[in-house]
Amino acid sequence: MKALEEKIRREGSVLPGNILKVGSFLNHQVDAEFTMEMGREIARLFAQEKITRVLTIETSGIPIALAAAAALHVPMVFAKKNRTGNLSGELYQTVVHSYTHGTDYNVVVEKKYILPGDRVLIVDDFLANGKALLGLMELVRMAGAETAGAAVAIEKGFQRGGDALRQGGMRVESLAIIESMEDGNIVFRD
Amino acid sequence: MKALEEKIRREGSVLPGNILKVGSFLNHQVDAEFTMEMGREIARLFAQEKITRVLTIETSGIPIALAAAAALHVPMVFAKKNRTGNLSGELYQTVVHSYTHGTDYNVVVEKKYILPGDRVLIVDDFLANGKALLGLMELVRMAGAETAGAAVAIEKGFQRGGDALRQGGMRVESLAIIESMEDGNIVFRD
Repeated sequence: MKALEEKIRREGSVLPGNILKVGSFLNHQVDAEFTMEMGREIARLFAQEKITRVLTIETSGIPIALAAAAALHVPMVFAKKNRTGNLSGELYQTVVHSYTHGTDYNVVVEKKYILPGDRVLIVDDFLANGKALLGLMELVRMAGAETAGAAVAIEKGFQRGGDALRQGGMRVESLAIIESMEDGNIVFRD
Repeated sequence: MKALEEKIRREGSVLPGNILKVGSFLNHQVDAEFTMEMGREIARLFAQEKITRVLTIETSGIPIALAAAAALHVPMVFAKKNRTGNLSGELYQTVVHSYTHGTDYNVVVEKKYILPGDRVLIVDDFLANGKALLGLMELVRMAGAETAGAAVAIEKGFQRGGDALRQGGMRVESLAIIESMEDGNIVFRD
């Protein structure tokens, strides 16, 4: 999505440790109208996939997941991190390892919000090593539902998570794929 | 908003301790299209207020805040809880007391995302005692900006936070106000 690449170039900044800061429009301040546009683009890409539900994980995936769900006319569900207490009812639960923070965290979703037979589209703001996405796919599997694909705003292609999932047969659509960002110079995949 | 009251009656459930569970459409699963509708209603209510920015707090306020911001054609900012580390740049920071969890937490926002002269609309999913909202108003004040009003989906009227803010001169619009929910019987304010 050309408009996203331009926005990343214009507003993003690269910090040491391959961190891309896009807090001006994606994950602290959110460009609401542009987010809705990204949601419509995701809906267009998955229009033939009979998606019944969008799944994301709190927090920064929520805006784009909501936008995609609204455009697909399906509900959005956000899985919660590190919680077991204040959700009533039974939960699906799995553990995700965060490279960024060097820790493991729980990801939970109430069972009634992913149903057997659902065709789930997983949506997130970032895809790097793909661990969060694999955790969400595991929740979908536990529910007896199917992950029809994954859509993210920005994929860090050099961290290979997206390609590994694609090699495994998963359809992964990223609105922008960063191939490298050495010395602050952002190169997108064609 | 009649449609919201009906949804609360149909899908909500009351748990001991005045807890209203609306996870089927508001804060775990999210009814995306209905959320966009709530956002348009908020935009309609504040159409004359020259809002320049919508401010919420992670996590469950994000969907309705995004929807309101998209309808108002302004950016949305979500303040973050309990973080000081991974946000670069300078922060506005305040402390909010959570009655639900009996603890204090930090609320932070990067300074560059609320500017002097901004007319900020604070949006959240719930308003109970109003402490989170007061914390967000404090961040706005620190920035030299103005809180033009607050809009929430569901106000627990019996916890008086909304009325206290109104008495203080703040414009607070709630799409549904629950006057009481004793014995699981939900009564809305007229």
